[in-house]
Amino acid sequence: MRRKEFSMNEQAEVEQFLNEMTYGCLGTTGEDGWPHVTPVNYVYHQGKIYFHGSRNGQKMKHLKACKQVTFLIAKEYSLIPSYYTDPEMACPATAYFKSVLIKGTAELVEDPVEKAGVLQAFMSKLQPEGGYRPITAEDPEYRPRIKGVAVLAIKIMEMSAKFKFGQNLHEEVRESIITSLNSRKRELDEETARLMRKYCPAHKDNGNDSTEA
Amino acid sequence: MRRKEFSMNEQAEVEQFLNEMTYGCLGTTGEDGWPHVTPVNYVYHQGKIYFHGSRNGQKMKHLKACKQVTFLIAKEYSLIPSYYTDPEMACPATAYFKSVLIKGTAELVEDPVEKAGVLQAFMSKLQPEGGYRPITAEDPEYRPRIKGVAVLAIKIMEMSAKFKFGQNLHEEVRESIITSLNSRKRELDEETARLMRKYCPAHKDNGNDSTEA
Repeated sequence: MRRKEFSMNEQAEVEQFLNEMTYGCLGTTGEDGWPHVTPVNYVYHQGKIYFHGSRNGQKMKHLKACKQVTFLIAKEYSLIPSYYTDPEMACPATAYFKSVLIKGTAELVEDPVEKAGVLQAFMSKLQPEGGYRPITAEDPEYRPRIKGVAVLAIKIMEMSAKFKFGQNLHEEVRESIITSLNSRKRELDEETARLMRKYCPAHKDNGNDSTEA
Repeated sequence: MRRKEFSMNEQAEVEQFLNEMTYGCLGTTGEDGWPHVTPVNYVYHQGKIYFHGSRNGQKMKHLKACKQVTFLIAKEYSLIPSYYTDPEMACPATAYFKSVLIKGTAELVEDPVEKAGVLQAFMSKLQPEGGYRPITAEDPEYRPRIKGVAVLAIKIMEMSAKFKFGQNLHEEVRESIITSLNSRKRELDEETARLMRKYCPAHKDNGNDSTEA
């Protein structure tokens, strides 16, 4: 189940996640009607999702035929083994994750100033340490390259998020999993344990409200 | 550009990637005709992609309406900053990645023995250390749970892969990026450097053939 509306805190959490992730999965419909999924680097900028690509690539063909898109940004956190909560049955094995799903329409950005702004936002996000001449539409060396690349904006119609960190667990089960993760210490285990506590209903400002519905 | 056919080596590489990744992005078509993308844990088993879910979930509704699916498994490796190859222009900034794209039809698995085999394959993949009673269709405690979960198989019609590790770079540029990655040492940098060398055309058994077309 996914929530379509967020409280202010949750909106900030979701935007922080969109800003920290570097790529998402673009769902389009192919010319043959078949669903298609493409991984793309993106930037969340001025309330839209932007990505770029070749003017003649497959993505552009799909988007010419059908502008309706879905964009998924997902990050898997720890795998939770069944034996953390059940000594025998395999059933409780699961994975914790964050995912944000966006439904919208994709449109080609043609204005060179907007394009330059988007490409600069890409660089600020993915190469924050700098080391390049800032991208502007007036720069004579950037101008032809800005023209040559296709930049697309996804105008967001719906955005929903699911952050799954065992919010529905009983307190003692949650604490036991947190202890197990903190001692296993695989990549992301400590971060997962921290988020389990952060998102658990009792720790949320708004009482029982959780990002997972 | 994606290759649809692989040499034997490449097929083994692709299968190894499918076995090491834990989740993929399932592209379906919604009842409203809109493309949809859902992250799912999967197992590549006996030549098919399998995933499971609730019998009444949104995925099942989509798949009842339309069995045509796309399944993307992608992993981003290092972000390559522009200044590794150009002191001024931002344009060479890029990301290296592996991605496998599968086109197929999704079908509900109804046979309890096949379902148990798939769920056991899931556990062997995601919880290789064990710690649970093996899943069999005859087990009286597992039987009702096997019945209760929806297991889906994607019958693969097309599989293509793109492993992007700078295969088209000149030798001296590749070596310079490898040196920079090995000294930056961010997560995945050393692995990316290793794969750049592994997949560079000169190091492939089959001469100029590369996984990236």
